[in-house]
Amino acid sequence: MAQLSIYLSAIAANYKTLKSKVGKGCEVACVIKANAYGLGMAPVSKLLYDHGCTHFFVATLPEAIELRMILGDSPSIAMLNGYDDEYSQLYIENNVTPVLNTIDQLNTYKASANNQNKKLPAIAHIDTGMNRLGMRANEIQSDSFDGLEMKSIMSHFISSEEKDNALNEQQHAIFKKVAFNFPDIPKSLCNSSGIFLHDSYHYDNVRPGMALYGLNPTPYQNNPMQPVVKLDAKILQVKNVKKGETAGYNATHRFTKDSHVAIVDIGYADGILRSVSNSANLYYNAIACPIRGNVSMDLTIVDLGNIASDQMPKSGDMMEVIGENQTADDLARDAGTIGYEILTSLSRRYERIYINP
Amino acid sequence: MAQLSIYLSAIAANYKTLKSKVGKGCEVACVIKANAYGLGMAPVSKLLYDHGCTHFFVATLPEAIELRMILGDSPSIAMLNGYDDEYSQLYIENNVTPVLNTIDQLNTYKASANNQNKKLPAIAHIDTGMNRLGMRANEIQSDSFDGLEMKSIMSHFISSEEKDNALNEQQHAIFKKVAFNFPDIPKSLCNSSGIFLHDSYHYDNVRPGMALYGLNPTPYQNNPMQPVVKLDAKILQVKNVKKGETAGYNATHRFTKDSHVAIVDIGYADGILRSVSNSANLYYNAIACPIRGNVSMDLTIVDLGNIASDQMPKSGDMMEVIGENQTADDLARDAGTIGYEILTSLSRRYERIYINP
Repeated sequence: MAQLSIYLSAIAANYKTLKSKVGKGCEVACVIKANAYGLGMAPVSKLLYDHGCTHFFVATLPEAIELRMILGDSPSIAMLNGYDDEYSQLYIENNVTPVLNTIDQLNTYKASANNQNKKLPAIAHIDTGMNRLGMRANEIQSDSFDGLEMKSIMSHFISSEEKDNALNEQQHAIFKKVAFNFPDIPKSLCNSSGIFLHDSYHYDNVRPGMALYGLNPTPYQNNPMQPVVKLDAKILQVKNVKKGETAGYNATHRFTKDSHVAIVDIGYADGILRSVSNSANLYYNAIACPIRGNVSMDLTIVDLGNIASDQMPKSGDMMEVIGENQTADDLARDAGTIGYEILTSLSRRYERIYINP
Repeated sequence: MAQLSIYLSAIAANYKTLKSKVGKGCEVACVIKANAYGLGMAPVSKLLYDHGCTHFFVATLPEAIELRMILGDSPSIAMLNGYDDEYSQLYIENNVTPVLNTIDQLNTYKASANNQNKKLPAIAHIDTGMNRLGMRANEIQSDSFDGLEMKSIMSHFISSEEKDNALNEQQHAIFKKVAFNFPDIPKSLCNSSGIFLHDSYHYDNVRPGMALYGLNPTPYQNNPMQPVVKLDAKILQVKNVKKGETAGYNATHRFTKDSHVAIVDIGYADGILRSVSNSANLYYNAIACPIRGNVSMDLTIVDLGNIASDQMPKSGDMMEVIGENQTADDLARDAGTIGYEILTSLSRRYERIYINP
């Protein structure tokens, strides 16, 4: 079976790196939505909590409730996908801080607080140009947040992994215009990449996700984070192929010379996106073995032509999918996507091994 | 939250269609690997068992053991990814029939049978050109299967969804050459699409997967199967956008006129492959709403420009991702992949609703 090793020690080190990057005046609130980017909400959140993290972000209400069950009463849990008045009691019972994305959410939540006769916790999300979730700057009035316990005013970058992109400062300018009207409310602007743009963007708290999990928040330079994930697949079979024969479904690769192939036990149902068909490598003893033909649901065919005949692997040996020779970001490039999608696609069909600090 | 509805009644109808297609002399063995193609191994396998299916195929040993726990002692469970002698006892204890893919697997399994002093069940897999798993025709001797209880000799098509592809008959010819040497051993050649190629390919049992789950095994004509999956995502926010503004990460779409967008609660962590960014539609009241910008981890932005202003949806309304207006196969085409990958990528973050017969 394929083996997914998750280095909790590296996540802890990355958390420490981010804390030291932003300094003492700024909180590092960890984003653990989507099952901690595929790595496991329970082990990852417990680790971060044990290392001092007291603020977490998730996407959905079920995620928030699950996290509350995992971590207990103490930490702050904020939910990015907004406030849904239909479930008002669940926010209160589980002490979930909604990120308010619309004026309607703001108003219904204020009404809920009024009904409860207490100041409920909230975060206000200003859309500074992404046209995704969030309120427009011009929708905010000076009394908009009265009656709520405002944890922060936040916004989200469009292209923060591009350090010279003018959008970053444009968004910052819009954000300041709103947020500076509320000097008593903490401010939050940075995702992982934003943290590395400029210290003046850090404000009161930052919200890293991908950097914790070892993806590179600064693609314009070497990755400042430690790698977190190692993924190896098992060779089920090694076979000879002859020049002119083809590989896999629809015969999309034709061998131009006699070679050997390995059939490994990982496919698109395991999150090896089918878009790496004929385009990425797996590694055996640090030697690149190109994927041949279409990736199947449970299987991938790789060419062993770069391996000396006395060094050939045999069935039962493992091949590296993500590790020292190929990062999740590398694999994403060959798949035409981003490292985030590689992580969130990781399967439950692997043997998962958590390596503790 | 997004809602995934799985019509078990349609799976049952598809099973019946396939049974009637192959006739009484041929068994329909259902393929339920990869969590029944993402739809849930337990409910799907129980349904099929209740409708008379007694032969199942999975990919891995853990899947086989899980299925044995679900269905009890009676049905036959075969495992496609081969025999691993390291776990010989688990095959025996769980009565798992390995698909033997190499001569080495054949020999070690025969030794295991010999040790047990009984004829263990097995399937022999002949690779007729796919260069994935399986033995070569010329590796098989007349006594190769002595000492085993041979359930079948099988092979697997490369391009059976292309009815005029010459590979189909070429593979069939190679298969016959081997299998006909063993008149007493049942024969199995067809996956879903193979069933629709030619009645002479049916032999003793067929192994459908995708057709059970409503994908089209005959892309050259209308889908003979009933649709199984309906996926709807919830609108979290509707907002105005102005001409010249952009959508989502990296601003990959620029609006050419003022419009409205909806932000829906589904993203690539939910299996809406990021490759549909700027390329597919979601549907509101049967009206196509193009995806704008990059799909995010938890969110997708769609353009409501095709909807009359008095028909606009509001937050809380649902949009169709897969359903009457867009099949999984349609969405796959826009994602540059196949319907199988759409199904196996379905998330555990949906509300799952099983609709029974």
